[in-house]
Amino acid sequence: MRSSQYLLSTLKETPSDAEIVSHQLMLRAGMIRKVAAGLYTWTPTGLRVMRKVEQVVREEMEATGALEILMPMVQPADLWQESGRWDAYGPELLRIKDRNQRDFLLGPTHEEVISELVRKEISSYKQLPLSLFQIQTKFRDEIRPRFGVMRAREFLMKDAYSFHLDEQSLQQTYDTMHQAYCRIFERLGLDYRPVIADTGSIGGSHSHEFHVLAQSGEDAIAFSDSSDYAANVEMAEALAPTEQRPQASAEMQVVDIKLKAGQQAADKLAISSSQTLRTVLVRASDEVTSEFVYLVVRGDHELNDVKAAKLAEVATPLEIVTDQDVIGCVDLFQGPWLDYPIIADHSAAVLADFACGDNNNGKWRTGVNWERDLRFSRSADIRNVVDGDPSPCGKGNLRIARGIEVGHIFQLGTKYSDAMKVGVLTESGKHQTLTMGCYGIGVSRIVAAAIEQNHDERGIVWPAALAPFDVVLIPMNMHKSERVKEVAEALYQACLDAGLSVLFDDRKERPGVMFADMELVGIPHQVVIGERNLDQQEVEYQSRKTGEKEKVAVDQVIAYVQTQLQQ
Amino acid sequence: MRSSQYLLSTLKETPSDAEIVSHQLMLRAGMIRKVAAGLYTWTPTGLRVMRKVEQVVREEMEATGALEILMPMVQPADLWQESGRWDAYGPELLRIKDRNQRDFLLGPTHEEVISELVRKEISSYKQLPLSLFQIQTKFRDEIRPRFGVMRAREFLMKDAYSFHLDEQSLQQTYDTMHQAYCRIFERLGLDYRPVIADTGSIGGSHSHEFHVLAQSGEDAIAFSDSSDYAANVEMAEALAPTEQRPQASAEMQVVDIKLKAGQQAADKLAISSSQTLRTVLVRASDEVTSEFVYLVVRGDHELNDVKAAKLAEVATPLEIVTDQDVIGCVDLFQGPWLDYPIIADHSAAVLADFACGDNNNGKWRTGVNWERDLRFSRSADIRNVVDGDPSPCGKGNLRIARGIEVGHIFQLGTKYSDAMKVGVLTESGKHQTLTMGCYGIGVSRIVAAAIEQNHDERGIVWPAALAPFDVVLIPMNMHKSERVKEVAEALYQACLDAGLSVLFDDRKERPGVMFADMELVGIPHQVVIGERNLDQQEVEYQSRKTGEKEKVAVDQVIAYVQTQLQQ
Repeated sequence: MRSSQYLLSTLKETPSDAEIVSHQLMLRAGMIRKVAAGLYTWTPTGLRVMRKVEQVVREEMEATGALEILMPMVQPADLWQESGRWDAYGPELLRIKDRNQRDFLLGPTHEEVISELVRKEISSYKQLPLSLFQIQTKFRDEIRPRFGVMRAREFLMKDAYSFHLDEQSLQQTYDTMHQAYCRIFERLGLDYRPVIADTGSIGGSHSHEFHVLAQSGEDAIAFSDSSDYAANVEMAEALAPTEQRPQASAEMQVVDIKLKAGQQAADKLAISSSQTLRTVLVRASDEVTSEFVYLVVRGDHELNDVKAAKLAEVATPLEIVTDQDVIGCVDLFQGPWLDYPIIADHSAAVLADFACGDNNNGKWRTGVNWERDLRFSRSADIRNVVDGDPSPCGKGNLRIARGIEVGHIFQLGTKYSDAMKVGVLTESGKHQTLTMGCYGIGVSRIVAAAIEQNHDERGIVWPAALAPFDVVLIPMNMHKSERVKEVAEALYQACLDAGLSVLFDDRKERPGVMFADMELVGIPHQVVIGERNLDQQEVEYQSRKTGEKEKVAVDQVIAYVQTQLQQ
Repeated sequence: MRSSQYLLSTLKETPSDAEIVSHQLMLRAGMIRKVAAGLYTWTPTGLRVMRKVEQVVREEMEATGALEILMPMVQPADLWQESGRWDAYGPELLRIKDRNQRDFLLGPTHEEVISELVRKEISSYKQLPLSLFQIQTKFRDEIRPRFGVMRAREFLMKDAYSFHLDEQSLQQTYDTMHQAYCRIFERLGLDYRPVIADTGSIGGSHSHEFHVLAQSGEDAIAFSDSSDYAANVEMAEALAPTEQRPQASAEMQVVDIKLKAGQQAADKLAISSSQTLRTVLVRASDEVTSEFVYLVVRGDHELNDVKAAKLAEVATPLEIVTDQDVIGCVDLFQGPWLDYPIIADHSAAVLADFACGDNNNGKWRTGVNWERDLRFSRSADIRNVVDGDPSPCGKGNLRIARGIEVGHIFQLGTKYSDAMKVGVLTESGKHQTLTMGCYGIGVSRIVAAAIEQNHDERGIVWPAALAPFDVVLIPMNMHKSERVKEVAEALYQACLDAGLSVLFDDRKERPGVMFADMELVGIPHQVVIGERNLDQQEVEYQSRKTGEKEKVAVDQVIAYVQTQLQQ
């Protein structure tokens, strides 16, 4: 492709409304253009990258034996009424009426349509298990579309659905999909983690998210430094300390630290926050006779809402009480002194001589000890893991990283197949409801996530599998030098003949503009053709990633680039 | 692919709601399933075919130098308000509101979005001409969706748009696109015609439709039997007869033929309908002093509404008067006897001694002659061409065929670029509005059109380029014969090794069921593996298209099929 016949559309300035680096770079590198809030046109460079993602995803889905289909983006309401989601789904579901005032919607996912297909087409256990997938435009009417294609309203997704006679078959396909997802992200050259995830409102027993690691990620994930274990922080188990609780050695004292709420009590007391308690009062469930329950964690830990909500003693949804009339003080001075049951995090349960609020504004207590001064009804895992915690897998310690969720696989169970009566006749002639799995990948989101992970101050640094072009030819002042022009044109033809994906920057631009554009767009391999090097029959190769430069003979450079491509 | 791991989904019965053969066969062959009126899921076999169309279209578009982009399906209303189409477009445009009650629409085409892109991205004449295309889902809220994917509401379309400084540049790209379209349909193996088309309401100077010829086609097209000339019948010129009008030889007589309206007057008069006049009264334009104008064509010809509406003397839109209080009789007995100007079709103008209505119910006149009995103000081409007419290109005679419109190319001119201010600075620094072309292909519709053209009583007969699989292996009673199973499995592996697109029908079905299914799905090359032929180390090859059978040695059959594929 010649730049002069291409729509490069690079921008020098960073658009002011782009908050994160991938959004900025996708605009600046001419990959997308905004049409309206959360709606984008993919310009040639952007689409080239997205098609590469799409193709890798398709190949790996096909390798699992999944069959590709294409379901409509516009879906009839009646199927969603049958599943119950027409009412249950919030305003992210864009409900529309056709010319006959019939209800339709723009599909955010396709569980209903696929369930309708399978209940009509599959009648025998012999046709199972069955996996179907599509790569199709989705629409979610986000309340706050932002971050470019990272959280767009219209986006491209691969969604797969599997149907099974039993849990064991579902588990097999789930494992196969898990492996396929790993291969996809490996082939794309991304640093990723499959993490154990909360199944949330969608229900079902097992779920993994696939995260591309990047500092700007919205999610915190915990992973072992010595194994494959990784989990969303909200799901990662904090193991109970193996050490025993020390003997009490201090007297309990009330200290007036004369602090206003919001300032660090531990600092004022000159003790480590790991020797303090953080106290949270929550509404109790029916399993407890009192109205409230205390949840306490170490002062250097954070209460994990997901874990807390799963405690039998705690009402769901979790309701944290901060009303001063109930807790008797501002939060900073709260301690578990009122007559409610205490559930202590395992790490808090092994403290001795610790400090906590006194339940009087301005005052804390020090030298507090369990049993002697306070009793907890039980200890449990109710905190977020932190960097350095032992990994729950038993190997190594946990590290915390930020991740961008780009894939999610679920064991759905019979949530949809029950509601929509998706079943078959078994070998013994009985009707059986099918068990389902679903498997999503955000195709367009991967493009943005890849940039969040792979960029520098000059622009995008594409992993090889994602680059819009593999090689760029940059002739210096070609329009003034016949020799440069001749060599550049010959190399361009040679690249085409060798089947390379090449951009030939034949624009009448200053070399500085060309270098800046090509580094911004992030083409992995640059070949610079200039007068001076041509005196030695050489051109200059430069790697976008490492910045390393190498002078290479003109007649060797194609082979040289091919060698680089294979690395 | 093994049938046992594929979703074949063939049907024995023809679904009752499928009116045309392509719809019936797409349902029966398991290519599509209805989700709601005009909304379909493409099942694996259907999608395989559609992706083949898509790929050929993409390759030929890229070969023209057009760049692929992807615009959103959901479009903001403000762009359509700017172009004027928000109000002008009928209820086929599905207007929707997002969660903030802002107006959007589901894109039926993308002229507005592309104009918005180009006016922002292109600022200099140096970047022109520019052609952009996308392959994207479209939505038209058809009042009567029918014929399966032939007239669906959601469908897949390739739409391209080109931008130019002048008409000459537009003409060049238009010609390039015309050639690309021809290559597309040739590569797809379809019998097609590019036909001169009416530009209709979209305006612009030039337009061609591309039709796949099929008896079920909704459009009539006229083409020369001796040249490339082809036109939509509404556009094809009927040349004026070269012969002179004969002398009048009969007396004019009023004949009471005692017919009720609706019966053939010519038959009753025992004359050829080509010796009669058909009279139509229409409202006149301001260019004529009278209120109405007579249009007369020969009784064996039909008035062409498009041509008639273009006459200066005739009001647009064309308004045909049938009110008996005005014409003085029922239509059958209408003759041009009232005091309004007459415009005679060229063929009617050379009649002598002809018959026409008398303007009194029940009566006609015979022996009528121009000049002596009636005067026309002028003659013009106002009829549809008929089979056998001389071709307006000067070569050969016209034939009439039915066609299915699958592509349409337009010279749009400045319709959108004027309204949306799409312009650049020219070399001399002046602002200039761009000239546009647009080029559509109905990707999903081509699949149905191909079937309309290529089928027999047993099912679909795919052209090679469109077949969902190239080869099918049909083992007979494999589950009873170890030898058949062994050979079939070995041949399947050999097909995969040879890179053939192969379906291996390993289902536990009777041979009759397998043959019927595979002929229905229309896989071009069948290899049947049966006990009897294996005694001679042979299998049977059969061509789906010709039905020819050939016994081929087991170890030769892959090479044999490859030879067939190359033909």
